Amino acid sequence: MKHFLDLAQLKRGEIAELLTLARRLEARPEPRALTGKILGLLFLNPSLRTLSSFQAAMARLGGSSFVVTPGHGTWQFETRDGIPMDGSAAEHVREGIPVLSSYCDVLGIRAFAEGRDLAADLADRQFLAMQALSDKPVVNLESAINHPCQALADWKTLDDLAVPEHSRFVLSWVPHPRALPLAVPAAILDMAARRGHEVVVLRPDGFALPGALMTKARAVAAESGGSVTETEDPAALEGARIVYAKEWGSTRHYGDADADAALRARFKHWQLTDQTLKRCASDCRVMHCLPVRRNVAIADEVLDGPRSVVLAEARNRLTVQIAVLYRLLASA
Amino acid sequence: MKHFLDLAQLKRGEIAELLTLARRLEARPEPRALTGKILGLLFLNPSLRTLSSFQAAMARLGGSSFVVTPGHGTWQFETRDGIPMDGSAAEHVREGIPVLSSYCDVLGIRAFAEGRDLAADLADRQFLAMQALSDKPVVNLESAINHPCQALADWKTLDDLAVPEHSRFVLSWVPHPRALPLAVPAAILDMAARRGHEVVVLRPDGFALPGALMTKARAVAAESGGSVTETEDPAALEGARIVYAKEWGSTRHYGDADADAALRARFKHWQLTDQTLKRCASDCRVMHCLPVRRNVAIADEVLDGPRSVVLAEARNRLTVQIAVLYRLLASA
Amino acid sequence: MKHFLDLAQLKRGEIAELLTLARRLEARPEPRALTGKILGLLFLNPSLRTLSSFQAAMARLGGSSFVVTPGHGTWQFETRDGIPMDGSAAEHVREGIPVLSSYCDVLGIRAFAEGRDLAADLADRQFLAMQALSDKPVVNLESAINHPCQALADWKTLDDLAVPEHSRFVLSWVPHPRALPLAVPAAILDMAARRGHEVVVLRPDGFALPGALMTKARAVAAESGGSVTETEDPAALEGARIVYAKEWGSTRHYGDADADAALRARFKHWQLTDQTLKRCASDCRVMHCLPVRRNVAIADEVLDGPRSVVLAEARNRLTVQIAVLYRLLASA
Repeated sequence: MKHFLDLAQLKRGEIAELLTLARRLEARPEPRALTGKILGLLFLNPSLRTLSSFQAAMARLGGSSFVVTPGHGTWQFETRDGIPMDGSAAEHVREGIPVLSSYCDVLGIRAFAEGRDLAADLADRQFLAMQALSDKPVVNLESAINHPCQALADWKTLDDLAVPEHSRFVLSWVPHPRALPLAVPAAILDMAARRGHEVVVLRPDGFALPGALMTKARAVAAESGGSVTETEDPAALEGARIVYAKEWGSTRHYGDADADAALRARFKHWQLTDQTLKRCASDCRVMHCLPVRRNVAIADEVLDGPRSVVLAEARNRLTVQIAVLYRLLASA
Repeated sequence: MKHFLDLAQLKRGEIAELLTLARRLEARPEPRALTGKILGLLFLNPSLRTLSSFQAAMARLGGSSFVVTPGHGTWQFETRDGIPMDGSAAEHVREGIPVLSSYCDVLGIRAFAEGRDLAADLADRQFLAMQALSDKPVVNLESAINHPCQALADWKTLDDLAVPEHSRFVLSWVPHPRALPLAVPAAILDMAARRGHEVVVLRPDGFALPGALMTKARAVAAESGGSVTETEDPAALEGARIVYAKEWGSTRHYGDADADAALRARFKHWQLTDQTLKRCASDCRVMHCLPVRRNVAIADEVLDGPRSVVLAEARNRLTVQIAVLYRLLASA
Repeated sequence: MKHFLDLAQLKRGEIAELLTLARRLEARPEPRALTGKILGLLFLNPSLRTLSSFQAAMARLGGSSFVVTPGHGTWQFETRDGIPMDGSAAEHVREGIPVLSSYCDVLGIRAFAEGRDLAADLADRQFLAMQALSDKPVVNLESAINHPCQALADWKTLDDLAVPEHSRFVLSWVPHPRALPLAVPAAILDMAARRGHEVVVLRPDGFALPGALMTKARAVAAESGGSVTETEDPAALEGARIVYAKEWGSTRHYGDADADAALRARFKHWQLTDQTLKRCASDCRVMHCLPVRRNVAIADEVLDGPRSVVLAEARNRLTVQIAVLYRLLASA
């Protein structure tokens, strides 16, 4: 494993091996495995879990980290090619990335979608261009269309809970004050299909996931023995073993904040409540990547109730990232 | 010692033991005591000393730290319960705290008073609610009504200077451009009473410390052989061995910034100067927790003069925090 | 070596020794040399390379770092003496520096020029006042008029490339949207003169480097066998082995942003392009300290072409800083 960019780049067996490694390092820590190694963390967007769990992961393995946050003590970054840099950005990624890469052994990069050009975001053009500028292993800390650390942590959480691989997994759109990127829904759709679930994407009209994502997920499901469908009918929750709640922007109005706002205002009742969950399986679990807007996306009663496993998911971020860093950096 | 939240939770002998431990680790450092351990630092408010001295303390003991600063590279935190999170805060403490807690071995939390509801601030409701969300030991890095690291460091500074336990200790209000919280005056009032001093709170009309704090301090003084009084008469400085200068908001106008500003404008002459100190004991020392507004709260002549021990206090922050972390984390 | 403040404080032989040490530690790392040691990093201005490479340097030597960035999670700093602090700055350097210094073994300070009073900036008054407040070794992370880490890294880059010591070195002004400080041009002028180059400062009318800097550089050159001249005639590029591009403000209008803006608007064609470089030696190299405004200061074609060594310079920041920290802190 040269980089950690996308779960789709790993074979099913490699994912299983990573999860086994995560469990092994949880049971028998190796506090000197990465002595002297350095993780560089570049955050072009805010973070809580990723920021702290990656530093903790390096520390648990005996290594070090540094954090760079353009706009907060560091020059703002320019990502566009070929333009005259006469605006507020002082540093171009064409210098910034190779320089940071030369100061560390592995570089984590967070760069959310720009949210203007759907095709560019779906192709993860900006992130892949940045990744290509690094001569060190790169970890995707969430790009325009992916969040492999979250997907891997969630896979482990499903394993921890012994959720059957072919059970019904509903990826449910939930409300948010603003249009959020597609990275997590895309990564979770792929993960659930890859694990073999009967995946249903439940979303209001105007919020369908892009066809390219659905097609790819169906191909993945075909191999794993799962399935992928989509609907706006909450009846899809019937028998669901997992409800994975996630906010995302309207794909019908991608990049049009006003039209998105007008449309999403009509779906505030999609908030996940105990009432919503009544249709689900009796042992249904509620997942979310966090941060979550309480009483907007998910009601307190759900987050504080017995079905929520959102904290277990967050704890697994640390567990799986320790394995990812170990695999990338520990000398065989 | 499970947490470090309040000096009042420690018996006199336990405080003495912590200070002895601090001296021992100063004389004979243990650079591997906390190898592999992680301190999480959550700052909901700005910091200089606490931010850097806690990281230094972990490093001196062989451990690591990570820093999370909502609003500066991390989502803003919501602390209120039961509300719909449709504003600027994306992360609720009900998720944020348990998540951070799961990534570290001890969690430091700074959360200043909201300054609106005196009863809520006096009860330290917000901080205690946050602390209860952590399943790891918590260190109070300054809450609405407490700052135990400052109080412990100041106790050590008094010991270092061999200030007699029953000497006169004047906690003197000094001016500031804005209303500051009660955390430090509350913590220092308690500490000085606990150490057995003849404590006088010297403050202008309208700035009396809340009765609950005074009553608690008097009870503490009754046990330690000290006393606690209050006055607006500068004659109280007569014979003072310590003048502890501190800014705080008007308690008469708690939460009313305009009325506070109008009132405090009348007391700019309460700035601590060499003239003020003429009444004090010849070996009087001036203390302050820092940061200090020079020539507003305390004149240059005092801070740069022989009576000031503010830098010694700040250095003792590191010394005592090493002991606190050691006590919380070092395996027996 | 007690501090690392200015290349001019080192004898030629000491610089050579530092560079030899840098190469030795690159070839044979000493990952435990600074175990338990702490570097404090105080940034009064933004940073990318310095921020990350100094943390990486400490980690490579087994030590730790903490970062303090006033205005980003830490109180704003006041540097002026004798004023009443009734503005936005809560912490005076007279407290801030000694306190930070007491928490670490070496303190790095970045404090750019204020850009108002040329004489004060040339004398590096603010930085030297801050340095004097530290009782620990201080590293200059870029002050009003110096950037010794950049100068030393660039010297190593010239050595790495085997650029002859007496070859032609053109320090060329290039455009920027705003007036930038004189620190880098001053440090590079001195470094190139010190290395023995035939230095030419190429700049438009109104952007001459201050006479004091030129005079000092000529004295240095007289000792090293080099020379220092200045011109606004691009014919100076003829035969140049190095073009060191750098942006700086108009010295004619120092501190007058409007007059500076009006003047610099006339010199946008000073952008460094392949066309500019046609006059240079065939093996000419282009240097820049970064960050660089692409297609404003230097064209893409140059930065992405074979002559640019800007990434090598940045990598050498880490290499030489490891040597500086080792020299300051490693027990003999």
